[in-house]
Amino acid sequence: MRSDIDAMMQAHDIDVLLVTGPAQHNPAMVYLTGGGHLTRADLIKKRGEPGVLFFAPMEREEAAAAAEKSGLITRGYANYPLRALLEESGGDQVAASALRYRRMLADLGVTSGKVAIYGQADLRTAFPVFYELQRMLPEITLAGDIGDIILGTAMFTKDDAEVERIRRVGKITTAVVGNVADFLTSQRVQGEMLVDASGEPVTIGKVKGLINLWLAERGVENPEGTIFSIGHDAGVPHSTGKPGDILRLGQTIVFDIYPCEAGGGYFYDFTRTWCLGYAPEAVQKLYDDVRTVFTTLKSELRTGARYYEYHKRACDLYEAMGHPTIESNPETEEGYVHSLGHGVGLHIHERPFSSTVALEEDRLIPGVVATIEPGLYYPERGMGVRLEDTFWVRPDGKFEVLAEYPLDLVLPVKK
Amino acid sequence: MRSDIDAMMQAHDIDVLLVTGPAQHNPAMVYLTGGGHLTRADLIKKRGEPGVLFFAPMEREEAAAAAEKSGLITRGYANYPLRALLEESGGDQVAASALRYRRMLADLGVTSGKVAIYGQADLRTAFPVFYELQRMLPEITLAGDIGDIILGTAMFTKDDAEVERIRRVGKITTAVVGNVADFLTSQRVQGEMLVDASGEPVTIGKVKGLINLWLAERGVENPEGTIFSIGHDAGVPHSTGKPGDILRLGQTIVFDIYPCEAGGGYFYDFTRTWCLGYAPEAVQKLYDDVRTVFTTLKSELRTGARYYEYHKRACDLYEAMGHPTIESNPETEEGYVHSLGHGVGLHIHERPFSSTVALEEDRLIPGVVATIEPGLYYPERGMGVRLEDTFWVRPDGKFEVLAEYPLDLVLPVKK
Repeated sequence: MRSDIDAMMQAHDIDVLLVTGPAQHNPAMVYLTGGGHLTRADLIKKRGEPGVLFFAPMEREEAAAAAEKSGLITRGYANYPLRALLEESGGDQVAASALRYRRMLADLGVTSGKVAIYGQADLRTAFPVFYELQRMLPEITLAGDIGDIILGTAMFTKDDAEVERIRRVGKITTAVVGNVADFLTSQRVQGEMLVDASGEPVTIGKVKGLINLWLAERGVENPEGTIFSIGHDAGVPHSTGKPGDILRLGQTIVFDIYPCEAGGGYFYDFTRTWCLGYAPEAVQKLYDDVRTVFTTLKSELRTGARYYEYHKRACDLYEAMGHPTIESNPETEEGYVHSLGHGVGLHIHERPFSSTVALEEDRLIPGVVATIEPGLYYPERGMGVRLEDTFWVRPDGKFEVLAEYPLDLVLPVKK
Repeated sequence: MRSDIDAMMQAHDIDVLLVTGPAQHNPAMVYLTGGGHLTRADLIKKRGEPGVLFFAPMEREEAAAAAEKSGLITRGYANYPLRALLEESGGDQVAASALRYRRMLADLGVTSGKVAIYGQADLRTAFPVFYELQRMLPEITLAGDIGDIILGTAMFTKDDAEVERIRRVGKITTAVVGNVADFLTSQRVQGEMLVDASGEPVTIGKVKGLINLWLAERGVENPEGTIFSIGHDAGVPHSTGKPGDILRLGQTIVFDIYPCEAGGGYFYDFTRTWCLGYAPEAVQKLYDDVRTVFTTLKSELRTGARYYEYHKRACDLYEAMGHPTIESNPETEEGYVHSLGHGVGLHIHERPFSSTVALEEDRLIPGVVATIEPGLYYPERGMGVRLEDTFWVRPDGKFEVLAEYPLDLVLPVKK
């Protein structure tokens, strides 16, 4: 939680956090400011002190609101006029921008130590500026945080207010999934195709348009898109589905939906696999294997366990069923080809992670919100299955799915 | 246009472009790949050669589609297995990632010269990795492109296909603006408030929800949000409006809307200022001044002129009317407080720019798509006015607004 930040800075010898970029769709800045319409800002936080939010003159009121919400101090860029900086730098924009950071840091008394930098930024600008800043300030080490140890550890456990926000997005997500199911089951069938009242085939593009509409109706955003893929594409985990593809009976549809609060806030992540009309035997068998692993894992979750244990367990269960997995063959494109899950918060994918390279600390401790999403993929056989819920590890140690939804494979259709 | 890239690399002594990040909401990657669901990728382009797209195994089909669309060569990250890189780097993730880039560059024969890097990325990871890469490769200079000279110059002029995409978003934008006007004029009035059929006051939050719904219905995204601000907030250019604020008669409403194609494609940018019911004399006067400058500037546009000239001209016109401007006082928060406009494309703000610090090359040449948005702001007097259209400089040298919409200030309401 936010209160862990100073301790993590201390433990990892970080003196200062420097976060740059907008306060929307930029998790580190959203986390520390509470979000809002700051299109460009910098936030510098010394260990043990409140953050200082640097803002553009036009955004002074938004900056003031963020500061009040999140206990920040504000300071305008107007204190560092660009014209003067450019003059001093002989017209060199990179040098002028680096000089501004140098002044900002100096004004907060930062002249040495280790500064960890964060934020979604265009490298075209950010890389040369921070490179130059590092050159200007040999007494300071500009570090990153590739393991996401400082802010990632804070974000790792959610407080009740955060969980409620994720739950709200989850309820909206499953409501929209219900809308999609209702829509599909109310269409008609022509041969093996789903068609609408006028006889037009129902396409993936049509369904995705409706998903976006229903999400918008409920006030959430869908910045990462939706996976709604059928047949062969359902067997390719990151294929999102081709807009022109027609929905046909008896084929696996992987429906993975992950919207977030408007403005780039908290996400939810959810997947079901459907077959319209009926499930061929081979599909039913694949689905049963995934469902068995899914329910087995859910029943075995223990507070404090390493997330990776369950990924390993999923691999063992699948191997015993005769499926290849990335544990036995890291290059496999058939069977179980991705890791079990990931934390969900201001990033759609964040710590804890379940893969082999996840940190020892990536454990299912109270406050964690994360997914379980075991799948099986056979693109050459034209099928794929994934089931996914997002759960919360409650303070009492129990695991709670934040938005329940039935697991049914077959969606009945009108003949 | 895209065909300018190699010449610009040559002119600015850049040997290689390296673009990183997803192919959605990441303009440089969208520009070079055509977009699509690549969640992480790298694209390395040597001068005079097609780009090479590096992709994750799970995204091989999306990578192949992008490559076919945009004339790229593909190469999987699977050629650079992470486990081996980590082993070689003693478990250091930063060093392993830098080593992978080093190998990727070496495999393309890049061992010296100047590499310009681009892409939306999290600095937490990207800064230390590229810093380490620079340390590893002293024969190579990792440069940025803070002036957006290489890709920015290519993106600066749009081909016909790009213009049609922007125009399509423009038509959707003005259609939604029309929906909003229809909605507002069909509500009722109670005292000085706008209320709905059940007598509930109409809030900014309600209107913004409808805007998102109507945009989603038409298949576009609104990642940057919408400015719909009233009264004092209308006088603060980047205030987006408070969701709980009630719409009242006779106050300026600045409505600035800038959606983009789904998945982070081309934007449109549009602003009108409205008064519900009636306009007080002071508001009408302010509006008339803005409209005069707006129409004067539009009538004076000449192909090939420096964009800044019109910004300067707007300042001169406003000064003559007695308004303070940033030209006479860069710190002013009253009067005309921002620059005249900006290019519009895969970024909502891109070259050409109109401000004092814009490049000499930022001219209104054929192919440019850009805005004119002169405003006047008096937050202490509780009002602000801005009018904005996005225009295209056609190959025949004429200026064409891509989506026309009436300029009326007053929206009539039912008593």
